[in-house]
Amino acid sequence: MLLPDIVKIREVAPRDGFQSLKVFLPTKKKLLIINAILDANIREIEATSFVSPSAIPQFKDAPELVAKLPRQSITYAALVPNLRGASDAIKAHIDRLVVVISATEAHNQENVRRSISESIADLDAIFALARAHETPVTGSVSVSFGCPYQGDVPQKDVYNLVNAYISRGATSVMLADTTGMATPNRVEHMVVYFQDKFPDINLILHFHNNRGTAMANLLAAIKVGANSFDTSLGGIGGCPYVPQAAGNLPTEDVVFMLEDMGIKTGINLESIIKAAHLLEKTLGYTLPGQVMKSGPRDPRLAAKIHNLS
Amino acid sequence: MLLPDIVKIREVAPRDGFQSLKVFLPTKKKLLIINAILDANIREIEATSFVSPSAIPQFKDAPELVAKLPRQSITYAALVPNLRGASDAIKAHIDRLVVVISATEAHNQENVRRSISESIADLDAIFALARAHETPVTGSVSVSFGCPYQGDVPQKDVYNLVNAYISRGATSVMLADTTGMATPNRVEHMVVYFQDKFPDINLILHFHNNRGTAMANLLAAIKVGANSFDTSLGGIGGCPYVPQAAGNLPTEDVVFMLEDMGIKTGINLESIIKAAHLLEKTLGYTLPGQVMKSGPRDPRLAAKIHNLS
Repeated sequence: MLLPDIVKIREVAPRDGFQSLKVFLPTKKKLLIINAILDANIREIEATSFVSPSAIPQFKDAPELVAKLPRQSITYAALVPNLRGASDAIKAHIDRLVVVISATEAHNQENVRRSISESIADLDAIFALARAHETPVTGSVSVSFGCPYQGDVPQKDVYNLVNAYISRGATSVMLADTTGMATPNRVEHMVVYFQDKFPDINLILHFHNNRGTAMANLLAAIKVGANSFDTSLGGIGGCPYVPQAAGNLPTEDVVFMLEDMGIKTGINLESIIKAAHLLEKTLGYTLPGQVMKSGPRDPRLAAKIHNLS
Repeated sequence: MLLPDIVKIREVAPRDGFQSLKVFLPTKKKLLIINAILDANIREIEATSFVSPSAIPQFKDAPELVAKLPRQSITYAALVPNLRGASDAIKAHIDRLVVVISATEAHNQENVRRSISESIADLDAIFALARAHETPVTGSVSVSFGCPYQGDVPQKDVYNLVNAYISRGATSVMLADTTGMATPNRVEHMVVYFQDKFPDINLILHFHNNRGTAMANLLAAIKVGANSFDTSLGGIGGCPYVPQAAGNLPTEDVVFMLEDMGIKTGINLESIIKAAHLLEKTLGYTLPGQVMKSGPRDPRLAAKIHNLS
């Protein structure tokens, strides 16, 4: 059995989680959550998205938020859907860009109102700009494991985007299971394929839990050597008004499981659970995360967590 | 990679799920749910528990329910905590007994108000009675992977109970993660150990999702050859009044994942999702299951599910 010693966790709640909130979360509250996340020793946070405020009003404060982020030895990334977003993000001094294109036409149209080739046409300028400002770029492929409009997604369509990113200088690539259609065999197949094709690239996996398989997918991925995952505090993401709606992998659940398996995440479990409780209190509804409800394995620590919440 | 071709699913919602309902669910409604489960072609159902009605009023209708179960080529099991329960279950013509003892003193006291040795002392009489009535017995070990009072559980304490069951003629043994403390390495270790010790025994795994690891645990188990699992319609179980409280593995999520991996369960996904929707309607609150919300991978089937719910 091949297991990594260390797994890197990117915290995406401030972007992927907040994106689906219907009410604007004030910058000050966002910063309190991000500070709580930092207390748990997370090293990379996807902090916001540089998109049109009319498309996603939640991120209208992106430049202001980035200016106020506590600067420690941490990487702040921002999602950028196009050249305009990339330019704004670089002006705001973000540490890393995450460019996103969907592997299917239908989903790319729905997500960014453009064809895949229109999105790709932007990449040269985005990467040139990023290079000029020494800002690394992660290339993300949405609906890599299945598309809600199309169903199965041919691997070559995922490959074409991955290759478009890498050939332009992306230092990491993300395969996103945007609507939770991945299952373990599909994940293993994809990870092995891209590790083989691009052995020097940091491959990040981003799993949603719409069909209950996200944690099993993570396990399948680490068993074939993947070591880099997106997770979200409290498991937020997806639609907040559907009770128990599936979001991302909860950061604290992933930290709990990996650390119990002897895999280092560098993240403090008690602190990240505290951050999840702060988030739950801030949002005012029950979050999908489980460890934040049950606490660690150790009965004394679990009792402490119960007293905290 | 070693994967089973077929996985056996025991549906436990009518026992493990209904057990935690605070309001008595009328026998007629229980039978409607069980019938919906049967429509999905499930082959074994843990239908009820023969316990003192003062301890768990939900199961006061156990004899009446069992008498009214539709008799097809299906096995109905019942949980029995002691000789009295075993005797009542056999009188009711149940197909299989599930005897339960916890691997830790603290949990056994909390669960059945007896010491482990008091519980074991009942086993000879229970197995003799079962043998006399040609009723097979499954021996279940609660808190096999961790105890909320004690934390880690020594493997030898689990072994002692497994051995107590098998030496008395149990044809299957269940390792239960009663409060969701298992993680994949612990599961693999335990499965490999007991498969090696007792290669001819049907080893059933029963995972709760209190810490978000249940589906990963199932994957870990099948990867070392386990092929028999308890699951619960809609994921019910645990405390119904904690929103999004973790219950069992949702049957429909497990069926979705395994079938997508090419592993046969014999269960019809669309029908089991229908049954989960009936259960949700009957109970009147949102269930933890995810596939019942998102539907199958195929967009046409997913749309159909959305129209159903």
